[in-house]
Amino acid sequence: MFNKSIGYNQDTIVAVATPSGSGAISVIRLSGPNSLSICIKFFVPANKKLTRNNIESHKLYFGNFVSDNTIIDEVLVSYFKNPSSYTSEDVIEISCHGSEFIQQKILEILLDDGARIAEPGEFTLRAFINGRMDLSQAEAVADLIASQSASAHSMAMKQMRGGISEKINYLRSKLIDFASLIELELDFSEEDVEFANREQFFNLINELKLELTSLISSFSLGNVMKQGIPVAIIGKPNVGKSTLLNALLNEEKAIVSHIPGTTRDAIEDTFIIEGYKFRFIDTAGLRDSDDIVENIGIERTYEKIKQATIVLYVCDIANINNGSVKEVLEEFKQYIQDETKHFIFVGNKIDQLGRLPSHIKEIFELDTVFVSAKRKENIQLLTDALVKTVKKFNITNDVIVSNSRHYQALVNALSSIVQVEDGFNNDVPTDLIAIDIRHALHELGTITGQITTDDLLGNIFGKFCIGK
Amino acid sequence: MFNKSIGYNQDTIVAVATPSGSGAISVIRLSGPNSLSICIKFFVPANKKLTRNNIESHKLYFGNFVSDNTIIDEVLVSYFKNPSSYTSEDVIEISCHGSEFIQQKILEILLDDGARIAEPGEFTLRAFINGRMDLSQAEAVADLIASQSASAHSMAMKQMRGGISEKINYLRSKLIDFASLIELELDFSEEDVEFANREQFFNLINELKLELTSLISSFSLGNVMKQGIPVAIIGKPNVGKSTLLNALLNEEKAIVSHIPGTTRDAIEDTFIIEGYKFRFIDTAGLRDSDDIVENIGIERTYEKIKQATIVLYVCDIANINNGSVKEVLEEFKQYIQDETKHFIFVGNKIDQLGRLPSHIKEIFELDTVFVSAKRKENIQLLTDALVKTVKKFNITNDVIVSNSRHYQALVNALSSIVQVEDGFNNDVPTDLIAIDIRHALHELGTITGQITTDDLLGNIFGKFCIGK
Repeated sequence: MFNKSIGYNQDTIVAVATPSGSGAISVIRLSGPNSLSICIKFFVPANKKLTRNNIESHKLYFGNFVSDNTIIDEVLVSYFKNPSSYTSEDVIEISCHGSEFIQQKILEILLDDGARIAEPGEFTLRAFINGRMDLSQAEAVADLIASQSASAHSMAMKQMRGGISEKINYLRSKLIDFASLIELELDFSEEDVEFANREQFFNLINELKLELTSLISSFSLGNVMKQGIPVAIIGKPNVGKSTLLNALLNEEKAIVSHIPGTTRDAIEDTFIIEGYKFRFIDTAGLRDSDDIVENIGIERTYEKIKQATIVLYVCDIANINNGSVKEVLEEFKQYIQDETKHFIFVGNKIDQLGRLPSHIKEIFELDTVFVSAKRKENIQLLTDALVKTVKKFNITNDVIVSNSRHYQALVNALSSIVQVEDGFNNDVPTDLIAIDIRHALHELGTITGQITTDDLLGNIFGKFCIGK
Repeated sequence: MFNKSIGYNQDTIVAVATPSGSGAISVIRLSGPNSLSICIKFFVPANKKLTRNNIESHKLYFGNFVSDNTIIDEVLVSYFKNPSSYTSEDVIEISCHGSEFIQQKILEILLDDGARIAEPGEFTLRAFINGRMDLSQAEAVADLIASQSASAHSMAMKQMRGGISEKINYLRSKLIDFASLIELELDFSEEDVEFANREQFFNLINELKLELTSLISSFSLGNVMKQGIPVAIIGKPNVGKSTLLNALLNEEKAIVSHIPGTTRDAIEDTFIIEGYKFRFIDTAGLRDSDDIVENIGIERTYEKIKQATIVLYVCDIANINNGSVKEVLEEFKQYIQDETKHFIFVGNKIDQLGRLPSHIKEIFELDTVFVSAKRKENIQLLTDALVKTVKKFNITNDVIVSNSRHYQALVNALSSIVQVEDGFNNDVPTDLIAIDIRHALHELGTITGQITTDDLLGNIFGKFCIGK
């Protein structure tokens, strides 16, 4: 258990909370017992009657920030009296002109007067330690700041508002109730009493397994929503994959030539469509080649297909006849067997055709889009198809796990629960089963932070930005 | 005169006021009559009793920013009721998480609801138009944000707090009083009356000339303080000029070799020492050369010497004898005749000497520093000498002009005043003299903004950052 009593809350931390660089306004934030007393030494309010005794929480005070009789800046000071603040401690926010010189100067002065520069994420760490939010909510704050798409934002917001915590706490409380019965049974083990109702227990085990499995399976979606949904663009050489990438990204990202085998490295870039972040991956064309570099590229293409959630299979429909249609279909089917992936067949080069030959229409019934990547025709149809595909994903889950730490803890918890079940089925002694229950409890506890270590906290908050 | 009545104050502007990018906090600022009504539509306060009718100025309100039933973020809203705000209009500041996605989303929502994206500097322009500050103060806001050194910061702060305005207004009011007497004289010109006391008038002319000259001459200092005090490093080839630059900057900026003539382009970089920003310029060594590129470099060196405020003349004292001392002295003197420049003689390569030969000590009495650029020995002595030199500059002036627009206006005003004086001395008709007085008044008026044009305002505020 993280030691909440030592070190924290004793000192006052300070950092610039706004993005680095210069701008109209910057905000410097103090948190800790001396926030007010440090700030008030340098703040000369326009309202002369203001003192540290009559300053009110949640009010804004205009005045000068003065040190050594030099006005550093005209500032707005706001005071958040504990516990009504982000950290639950006394918080002061100094809103100054966004000059880097002024920001540094004010920081220096506050540091000289006994404040300590905040570690990355330390304000949020304090909020967590002071019970203002649990660990998964604190992690969501970082996700929220990093979110670039509506879907990532929405997941982070749900998590910050306690979506996952609620679920985990529910599962954990059920497990705790039962664990205490089991432990009681252990205390009276010599008397061979069964306090815990076995049937109720198996029902709970099943419920837990179901819930955990559902949360675990939501991670593949949650993770790709956060990182960008990987879309591999594959196909034979020279069918226009790189041109299609450029058309999707609306920029000349990949080098395009008429020479088959132009693309060797997998070229990636992200693009947000209707709030979903897609990570498009252009790959080397799939063919037998003698070129060593190209072959490495082709190998990587297979790797990328494995990682992709959506695969765009691109085909040159201007150079396809009844014979080759069969061949293309065979190749397409070879991939489509993978049920975890979503395939879209992209018939490219429609600009070279008068109208679609009937045999092509017939063959590919579903998830087929005909485009001209070169002329950027029908690209909208393709992006529509991509968004439709994402929406088909199982997002009925109200809680989506997007944090790999949570995912790992859930997988571990499930494995312990399965062992508990096996234990009961195989008449394993109750004291051994109790150990597995405690494991499961421990794993669930790490998600919301009932159970933490310094290492874990360092790991989580070290990734935050300064000032949060 | 700028039309203050049309267009401005009618609409509500919005912009992100904090530096761009992501961070812990960002602030989005609204100004204009609808600030409150626009914001309140999307703000769901934690305190349910809050409405637009009981919201108080200079208070902070926590709650959710909600659009289409989606929580965009948890925000702090502060309200500054007109005229107690930066712009003198109703101002709202929304403090949200510093995610670029959230910033954009909130901006979009506010724009959709009738706010208009602010032009660069438009908040400050409104502050000016609403009489919250004059033009030179508004310009100081931009200087303050851009200030990188203590000296530039201090000049901008003085100007923002009305240092220049006070002086200009004083001169202008004196001139106005007198102009009105002159104009009165014109009204009665047929009666040949002299209302204006000629002696008093000449005293005023002299005072104005003195004050204007003093302000004008402060510009060369003010400007270099703002842009960085140019320090040219000159000397014969291979005396260690580039090594000295690197030692001063504490980085490997210039390419150093033992080959004379290595440096061709003038290499510049700024460095702040004790609050002063210096712009060091390494130059090509001065010698007769057949190398065309090197000769262009040498020509540029002479240019740089002209532009410099301080010149470091570097000499290799390890390779100097009684004969060449004279030669060095001659060359040094050749430059030192320029009285507008400050020279420091730098004897380099002391690491190659046991002790300083007495003839060297004797020759250069003042402003001489002996260093080893290579071993970074005595560099502190040199930076001390630089700071001492800057402090010797005439900074007894409490008002320093650092803005080239103000400088130009002052030069124009002085020229008009000189013409007024000449006019009186040469019995030019009073109506012609009155024109020159009006010119002088006009020029002084442009500094503080009593007289402006749209072009002028566009020019000034167009250089501001967005959100200020």
